[in-house]
Amino acid sequence: MAMSDLQNISQRSAGESFHIDTIVRKLHEARRTWRTSTQRVQEAGAREFPARAALEIVLNHLSGALFPMRLGPPDLRQESEDIYVAHALDVALNALLGQVYLELSLSTRKDREADFSRRHQHARELVGLFAQKLPEIRRLVDTDVLAAYRGDPAAGSVDEVLLCYPGVRAVLVHRIAHELYQLGLPLISRMLAELSHEQTGIDIHPGARIGESFFIDHGTGVVIGETTVIGSRVRLYQAVTLGAKRFKAGAGGELVKGEPRHPRVEDDVVIYAGATVLGLITIGRGAVIGGNVWVTQDVPAGAHVTQAHVQQATKS
Amino acid sequence: MAMSDLQNISQRSAGESFHIDTIVRKLHEARRTWRTSTQRVQEAGAREFPARAALEIVLNHLSGALFPMRLGPPDLRQESEDIYVAHALDVALNALLGQVYLELSLSTRKDREADFSRRHQHARELVGLFAQKLPEIRRLVDTDVLAAYRGDPAAGSVDEVLLCYPGVRAVLVHRIAHELYQLGLPLISRMLAELSHEQTGIDIHPGARIGESFFIDHGTGVVIGETTVIGSRVRLYQAVTLGAKRFKAGAGGELVKGEPRHPRVEDDVVIYAGATVLGLITIGRGAVIGGNVWVTQDVPAGAHVTQAHVQQATKS
Amino acid sequence: MAMSDLQNISQRSAGESFHIDTIVRKLHEARRTWRTSTQRVQEAGAREFPARAALEIVLNHLSGALFPMRLGPPDLRQESEDIYVAHALDVALNALLGQVYLELSLSTRKDREADFSRRHQHARELVGLFAQKLPEIRRLVDTDVLAAYRGDPAAGSVDEVLLCYPGVRAVLVHRIAHELYQLGLPLISRMLAELSHEQTGIDIHPGARIGESFFIDHGTGVVIGETTVIGSRVRLYQAVTLGAKRFKAGAGGELVKGEPRHPRVEDDVVIYAGATVLGLITIGRGAVIGGNVWVTQDVPAGAHVTQAHVQQATKS
Amino acid sequence: MAMSDLQNISQRSAGESFHIDTIVRKLHEARRTWRTSTQRVQEAGAREFPARAALEIVLNHLSGALFPMRLGPPDLRQESEDIYVAHALDVALNALLGQVYLELSLSTRKDREADFSRRHQHARELVGLFAQKLPEIRRLVDTDVLAAYRGDPAAGSVDEVLLCYPGVRAVLVHRIAHELYQLGLPLISRMLAELSHEQTGIDIHPGARIGESFFIDHGTGVVIGETTVIGSRVRLYQAVTLGAKRFKAGAGGELVKGEPRHPRVEDDVVIYAGATVLGLITIGRGAVIGGNVWVTQDVPAGAHVTQAHVQQATKS
Amino acid sequence: MAMSDLQNISQRSAGESFHIDTIVRKLHEARRTWRTSTQRVQEAGAREFPARAALEIVLNHLSGALFPMRLGPPDLRQESEDIYVAHALDVALNALLGQVYLELSLSTRKDREADFSRRHQHARELVGLFAQKLPEIRRLVDTDVLAAYRGDPAAGSVDEVLLCYPGVRAVLVHRIAHELYQLGLPLISRMLAELSHEQTGIDIHPGARIGESFFIDHGTGVVIGETTVIGSRVRLYQAVTLGAKRFKAGAGGELVKGEPRHPRVEDDVVIYAGATVLGLITIGRGAVIGGNVWVTQDVPAGAHVTQAHVQQATKS
Amino acid sequence: MAMSDLQNISQRSAGESFHIDTIVRKLHEARRTWRTSTQRVQEAGAREFPARAALEIVLNHLSGALFPMRLGPPDLRQESEDIYVAHALDVALNALLGQVYLELSLSTRKDREADFSRRHQHARELVGLFAQKLPEIRRLVDTDVLAAYRGDPAAGSVDEVLLCYPGVRAVLVHRIAHELYQLGLPLISRMLAELSHEQTGIDIHPGARIGESFFIDHGTGVVIGETTVIGSRVRLYQAVTLGAKRFKAGAGGELVKGEPRHPRVEDDVVIYAGATVLGLITIGRGAVIGGNVWVTQDVPAGAHVTQAHVQQATKS
Repeated sequence: MAMSDLQNISQRSAGESFHIDTIVRKLHEARRTWRTSTQRVQEAGAREFPARAALEIVLNHLSGALFPMRLGPPDLRQESEDIYVAHALDVALNALLGQVYLELSLSTRKDREADFSRRHQHARELVGLFAQKLPEIRRLVDTDVLAAYRGDPAAGSVDEVLLCYPGVRAVLVHRIAHELYQLGLPLISRMLAELSHEQTGIDIHPGARIGESFFIDHGTGVVIGETTVIGSRVRLYQAVTLGAKRFKAGAGGELVKGEPRHPRVEDDVVIYAGATVLGLITIGRGAVIGGNVWVTQDVPAGAHVTQAHVQQATKS
Repeated sequence: MAMSDLQNISQRSAGESFHIDTIVRKLHEARRTWRTSTQRVQEAGAREFPARAALEIVLNHLSGALFPMRLGPPDLRQESEDIYVAHALDVALNALLGQVYLELSLSTRKDREADFSRRHQHARELVGLFAQKLPEIRRLVDTDVLAAYRGDPAAGSVDEVLLCYPGVRAVLVHRIAHELYQLGLPLISRMLAELSHEQTGIDIHPGARIGESFFIDHGTGVVIGETTVIGSRVRLYQAVTLGAKRFKAGAGGELVKGEPRHPRVEDDVVIYAGATVLGLITIGRGAVIGGNVWVTQDVPAGAHVTQAHVQQATKS
Repeated sequence: MAMSDLQNISQRSAGESFHIDTIVRKLHEARRTWRTSTQRVQEAGAREFPARAALEIVLNHLSGALFPMRLGPPDLRQESEDIYVAHALDVALNALLGQVYLELSLSTRKDREADFSRRHQHARELVGLFAQKLPEIRRLVDTDVLAAYRGDPAAGSVDEVLLCYPGVRAVLVHRIAHELYQLGLPLISRMLAELSHEQTGIDIHPGARIGESFFIDHGTGVVIGETTVIGSRVRLYQAVTLGAKRFKAGAGGELVKGEPRHPRVEDDVVIYAGATVLGLITIGRGAVIGGNVWVTQDVPAGAHVTQAHVQQATKS
Repeated sequence: MAMSDLQNISQRSAGESFHIDTIVRKLHEARRTWRTSTQRVQEAGAREFPARAALEIVLNHLSGALFPMRLGPPDLRQESEDIYVAHALDVALNALLGQVYLELSLSTRKDREADFSRRHQHARELVGLFAQKLPEIRRLVDTDVLAAYRGDPAAGSVDEVLLCYPGVRAVLVHRIAHELYQLGLPLISRMLAELSHEQTGIDIHPGARIGESFFIDHGTGVVIGETTVIGSRVRLYQAVTLGAKRFKAGAGGELVKGEPRHPRVEDDVVIYAGATVLGLITIGRGAVIGGNVWVTQDVPAGAHVTQAHVQQATKS
Repeated sequence: MAMSDLQNISQRSAGESFHIDTIVRKLHEARRTWRTSTQRVQEAGAREFPARAALEIVLNHLSGALFPMRLGPPDLRQESEDIYVAHALDVALNALLGQVYLELSLSTRKDREADFSRRHQHARELVGLFAQKLPEIRRLVDTDVLAAYRGDPAAGSVDEVLLCYPGVRAVLVHRIAHELYQLGLPLISRMLAELSHEQTGIDIHPGARIGESFFIDHGTGVVIGETTVIGSRVRLYQAVTLGAKRFKAGAGGELVKGEPRHPRVEDDVVIYAGATVLGLITIGRGAVIGGNVWVTQDVPAGAHVTQAHVQQATKS
Repeated sequence: MAMSDLQNISQRSAGESFHIDTIVRKLHEARRTWRTSTQRVQEAGAREFPARAALEIVLNHLSGALFPMRLGPPDLRQESEDIYVAHALDVALNALLGQVYLELSLSTRKDREADFSRRHQHARELVGLFAQKLPEIRRLVDTDVLAAYRGDPAAGSVDEVLLCYPGVRAVLVHRIAHELYQLGLPLISRMLAELSHEQTGIDIHPGARIGESFFIDHGTGVVIGETTVIGSRVRLYQAVTLGAKRFKAGAGGELVKGEPRHPRVEDDVVIYAGATVLGLITIGRGAVIGGNVWVTQDVPAGAHVTQAHVQQATKS
């Protein structure tokens, strides 16, 4: 292609108004710079990533398979439940299979030569293991729904809870994402968690371990960190943070990843809105943490921690 | 159908990889267990529920009918406004009619034999009553838009307010949902409220009673409980909670539902970001509640309540 | 059209059930009242506004042009990157051109007679200026991605950061919106910011000036006001507010718009979850603001400000 | 609603430009006139009709259930075939059930009081009977596919035949539509036939009875009338008409509907492009009808009928 | 932009595999050549054309406005008919207005300087005139539907005719397109006609003049030329051609456009399948033209013209 | 999975109403029977086929790349033509690459072990070769458009021709499909041809060789066979068949595939509506074949062949 022709084209094309050719070139350089500079931390290069759209399909079909009459197609009749559930599982698991394969390809990048079909076999095994956990996930979410119904005087029925409560939605997605996290799929599980975060405003890291009958009311602004451990029958309100206090840095100043650094919350604890609980501490069984309280040390079982309510009221 | 055939099929089908048949059976059992165990609280069984997708249609058309040039179709010309409004109302009210019928069917489940057409007649009456409220809803939201424009120095025009402010969106949806709540439709009104909560991060229970010229700035994390009563010209900022302090339990330990348990906020009150106001208390006319303040007792009219600002500043 | 005919029609049409004709008339009157009463503040009348759907197209194509392999089409191959980038830019800039023209038409309403093509020329110049900023926007977001990867022990790779972190999404949109704000397009830039606010729960006014390597973790509930100035390498957590303390009112009681009223946050500052920083104050370089702290006065460089942790713990 | 208001509205609305109010009134009158004048022939009034969109769903899912790997979803894997087939049948048959109920409601209009659930029961029985015919339909279409492959030297594989040949598509739809016609559902079966007619240009009335191994090549313009009977291994080319010669009129001049009036085409007949075969005549076994021939009388078995080829060739 | 950069880009981009840059350049040259060479016949250059998608919207809404309960939305209730009709007209006429403006811009290209708003005014007048014809169009199509019901023994009801018969669909579209043709909009009317041709296989030039009670049975392959004139109560079958015999050429050998060159078909004529009627001849009132007959001369009123049926039948 | 459980499920599921389990089993058996019986002719088994939806994407983007201002996006501006063309080519060629790979996999099935990447390399070469032909395809279609404009007195402009004429659409698709056929891709090319056949009613086998300036008017029902050869400046009308007379059968009675068996039509021939030309004969340069004529022998150059017009006209 002669240069003069190409020049003609770029001058005639929108380049004329907006200099698109120049911007394309500069953006190209920016990508090259970035790829060079991050070679150490980002080794994946240009390979394909799990796709958000595919994971939405996985999530919708799994939700339908778990709760066909409430989260499945609106015109489903009860006598077709099992046929629908089988189909929804088939679609969800096959779609998940493709995404798992992509994540495995990323994480095993170095031995790219590794047997193509061995990786497929691995993906298949992981999805199979995940599939076996679905009945237990359903059982756990049933306890969550009941906990919400019992814990909120505004809840009119268990159906209202399942249809309306963002906290229940977030926990349902978390229980799915957590199983995938356990199977060694941090990226997919994190992407699923963010789909739920975006919709509900509740940010639960897929690494968190959460017992049964868990209820988050209202939920906007809740953050639950990666190494948090939560017992049974725990109740949280909006804007509660279960976070890390400080991060451990390695010799070179780089953060050490994956260390336990979040709270252990024992059974039957209640944490009210806006409370912040930080660090590898324990909130003992049955404790109650008041709203907006800041907690960075162990709380004994059964304790009630509240803010001191130091306020100034002045007539204006 | 011979068993051996079916076994063949299930072995050949995806069952082979993922044992879908086993999972289907276990999920079936889980649903049976759940349905048996919740018979007392959840009496609705397998009947059809109001559908989120249908309510989105209702909401979009009502928004367009109320504000045709701003929330209606982008190419609407002013001379077609009334024709569009009539059509949008017709679509919205007929779609709502179907959903109201479904909710009535749920709530009157016991006398299932009840006259089919009587229930339709009831649904029609409710939608008719709701429709009569629309001009008043428009008038109220006009006061809200003006309050936002006047209350925010960053607001460039009333149009910017209506197009961009999540607080105005949330109040618009609430004023619609509240009318339906008043008419005895708790499920539909709650589903509408959650559509708005998801989008704006503002969680207003449809039971809350809110006066005119109401403005929520930024909004993420605001929670307003079921029995809250708010006067005119009230202004809230993000992450404000108007919640319940504790729940009343019945003899059997079950929560008493529907009791008044949330604050009364009188005219001209301002509540700054992150403040938590709990319980059946009164915030008197013109009071100002500072950011992050925790309030569980009455505040007199005109008072300014602020946090004590107990802080430690240390050089690192 | 004879009145009797029209009456027939309206009686026969849905008016019969829901009195749509009456509601249409009342809503018409409400609009007339509103338009009359707001003539002073809202001068735009019935003219066309920038459209949310068009701005979503702009944003998606710009995101793809900036990060083709991560935010572009899922099946893009690296060898097609530049062709895709050129096309995405072409689509985005032309769509933006139309919206800019609409905003210019609104703001120059008074001299409606002004040369039609002069306004087009102006729009074209603004979009051209904006386009030149895109490589710099890419460079800045690269620093943000790296800051997130380095600042969060839960981040597994820079790709995970770009694909999953709402804070990075919010900053990417802000850097685009801010350039448009700088060019005198407050409405479009605000609408873009609200698209991101809705998705991420992070509310950054497009007027805010933010340095490189900026990281917001979790993010839900963060609010950053119009005249905020943020240095380099600053880190925020969820629910942090950088807001105004009080608004300046003019002689007539109307708020003065656009005045500097938000914090200056210098380089290397960290602000933990739920902290509220208000007013035209300075948080000095390297300062650390603890969670839930309320700050309304200057904080010296290097200081650590934490809540006093006044709590009452009682055994229940 | 006061007349003057309504008049205002209609003058202000688009009526001003296009007099929409007048047109609405005139169209209303046109409908009233029509409904009055056709009361005898059209008794259905305003009740709901089977919907084209619903029948497209039925057809797509039945096609997928019959040929899952060729006409089902593109990414179906063979090991999921049965699960997909069960789901596709479930969707198709339930959607069909709704449409059958609508057609039954139309045809039993006079005894509108008839038991609502009796009609549902009837619809359910009809769909059940139809469902039982599906394996036989699959077997017949398999013979058609093979006939096409064997009869066309341009056919490269049986897969190409199933994927590409409009004649096969038309026969597949016909075999489905014919079963529904046999069950007393003339409207649904005709609507299905027209979906195929539109796509393929082949117009087969659902009443026609067609034996196995039937092949239509190219197909555009083929017309096969309601009472046609076609044997096995018959082959047609494009633009062949199997039509009625004349219609029988009753005493009052009205056409007698449903009388046998189309050809009987025996086994192994071939009819070439453009031939027209009219009336209740018999084309004997193994006969060959040449292109563009006009046949209105019986053709004996084994005969070859060709046009006399009377042509004039002149040098220009 | 330096040439070497651009060369780099094009080599790195898909150019490497498919030499896209070369193809782009060659296609660019092809367009330049074409535009130069056709300057005389194609004067429109790069200006915008009426869009098929917009015309589909016009057609769908007009169909719905004319037959709301049959061709309008499937869930329309009779009591909402007029509101729906008004809205459908409003949408259709405004969409048409935009397309008419585009066609007028094309045809008045030479005086491009002509008053922008004068052309808008003209478009508005044309659409207003068209709108006034809609009640008459409805009346005519009513006669067509009745003619189909009466003329086809296979027609079970007038509703089946309106829902299923491609001939009725084609005539409905023609009656709309013809009015636009009469108003001087040849391009829009032709595009509408082709939308119908594609769906029904019936090709009626919008210039053809057709009387009431017109019925085309089956229809595939029917062609009706631009200057054809058809009386009342005419019936055609599939593959009938009403065409031109030869074209008149000007001095330079170019065809003279728009000359009368097609048949006049008087009242009550029937033309059977495959008949070809060519030239500016008259088929007299009540004549019957047999199938596959070739007619190029006047046919007297009441005559029956049939093919001589010269055939050879041989035993194979 | 215990049999009794599965039996329970199938009885409870829709099986109860429609016996879906039985139908699934019978359809499964039907597929097994078919796959066994056709093993010889259909060796492809369960592997993936080129997909219609993907080919529609290919076709739409190629059409846009060839005629950006007429067949590209409706709002394309001329100054963005080349950028759009590059992008459309990139999308089309990459999508085509995937489909070509699938077809190659089918046809090389026996040596399944063959190098995976060798097949990819082959697909890439074929698409590269095809891409080089696009400028020539554009040039040819330009001659076709001009031929249509010049040959039809009803054609108002070359733009009308490109936007409206189904004959031009069919030839455009054919010229694309033919190149792919030449490259050894019979299935993809046939599927493309059928996309066009469905839309236009014109059935051109991709194997046909067609010279420049080709025009088909009206077009419905035209059939052009696989081994047809057509010269330059040929004109056809609707329902013309260029077909095979008889098929050559092998020893075993099976048709011999791919033999030359269709007409050679030399330059400047005109064939009028409904004419049927069959067999490996030659229609000499400049010949004119009249409407409905049946031709099975060579026609000398310049000859005019017309039907003898044997008709009987009787007064009724």
